[in-house]
Amino acid sequence: MTVETTYINLQTKGNGDVIDITSQVQASVSDCSLENGIVSIFTPSSTSAITTLEFEPGCVADLQRVFDVIISPSQQYAHNQRWGDGNGHSHARAALLKPSLTIPFIARELALGTWQQIILVDFDNRPRQRKLVVQLLGD
Amino acid sequence: MTVETTYINLQTKGNGDVIDITSQVQASVSDCSLENGIVSIFTPSSTSAITTLEFEPGCVADLQRVFDVIISPSQQYAHNQRWGDGNGHSHARAALLKPSLTIPFIARELALGTWQQIILVDFDNRPRQRKLVVQLLGD
Amino acid sequence: MTVETTYINLQTKGNGDVIDITSQVQASVSDCSLENGIVSIFTPSSTSAITTLEFEPGCVADLQRVFDVIISPSQQYAHNQRWGDGNGHSHARAALLKPSLTIPFIARELALGTWQQIILVDFDNRPRQRKLVVQLLGD
Repeated sequence: MTVETTYINLQTKGNGDVIDITSQVQASVSDCSLENGIVSIFTPSSTSAITTLEFEPGCVADLQRVFDVIISPSQQYAHNQRWGDGNGHSHARAALLKPSLTIPFIARELALGTWQQIILVDFDNRPRQRKLVVQLLGD
Repeated sequence: MTVETTYINLQTKGNGDVIDITSQVQASVSDCSLENGIVSIFTPSSTSAITTLEFEPGCVADLQRVFDVIISPSQQYAHNQRWGDGNGHSHARAALLKPSLTIPFIARELALGTWQQIILVDFDNRPRQRKLVVQLLGD
Repeated sequence: MTVETTYINLQTKGNGDVIDITSQVQASVSDCSLENGIVSIFTPSSTSAITTLEFEPGCVADLQRVFDVIISPSQQYAHNQRWGDGNGHSHARAALLKPSLTIPFIARELALGTWQQIILVDFDNRPRQRKLVVQLLGD
């Protein structure tokens, strides 16, 4: 068994921007020396998160609206009152959706469903540069 | 260290059906050649998700109601307007709860709590056949 | 590749208590024999969960309020009606936030962001002793 590390660099628009990173993760799997294992994708950030979604404009809009309802930017946030940076909702959303996702790969292919893409959601309230860590373990 | 892959086949009722998969995951651990490691359980689907729960009818009903409140099927979903398949809420719910779960095992036993079971929640709006991927890593 | 297991023992206050466990997880990484890999942190419990957060009092209060709104303790819970222990909301919250988190480490350092701490959230309705499982895989 071996560990291999790669990175995915992204420019996001913030504000709930949803970015499909499936092809980059699959490229990490295809290019590594491992046949079978897991890939752990991690965003080293407290205002973005990783999950899967059918990446089509309807599902993207629906997921964004869900977060606007359950963790609304128009509520009062103690983080904003202390630090004045206006992204209190971004922190709470990212904590709820969580920064990591683990996906198995078999014969150098991610074991994703047909309509299932890997996404980064950037909840910060401004555009951000993101560098995701892609850790591959297997043999 | 070695990687081993098994699968769990399930028939679900959809509509938030909660299925206890603990015994199948424990069987995967018991039957593999590894003593210690992690098991990564993944649903290759954009309308189902995996987590843990005390699997008793009260907690199951409560979790279903929480999703009915925070991501209600009676809202408008852009996914439904584009594709007409009526499961827009299923996609948003699955993205929030996420398709994978990683659990340590030690001496061939899952490190679960006494009242903690592993569950698949099928949020799709119809019965589905599911084939979960169980990836075991360890030595 | 090797697997190593350590534990983190905690006393919590319950009721949404948020505890920063970053230094303990980093100590597990620093003290193990591995250079690169992943650490999987797991709470063997159905009323607590693990994620990351900027651990400052504002973000902590905001996350607690979000859960008070979306899974309120003042709602009726079927779990409480069946078992009378009053922590139905704790179970639903823990199932939503999930009991495990996987983080890569590189050259014996967790790949966390600058403002990103690892937290245990104890949703139970009373103080609890918790023993988290920290499983390290790598080489």
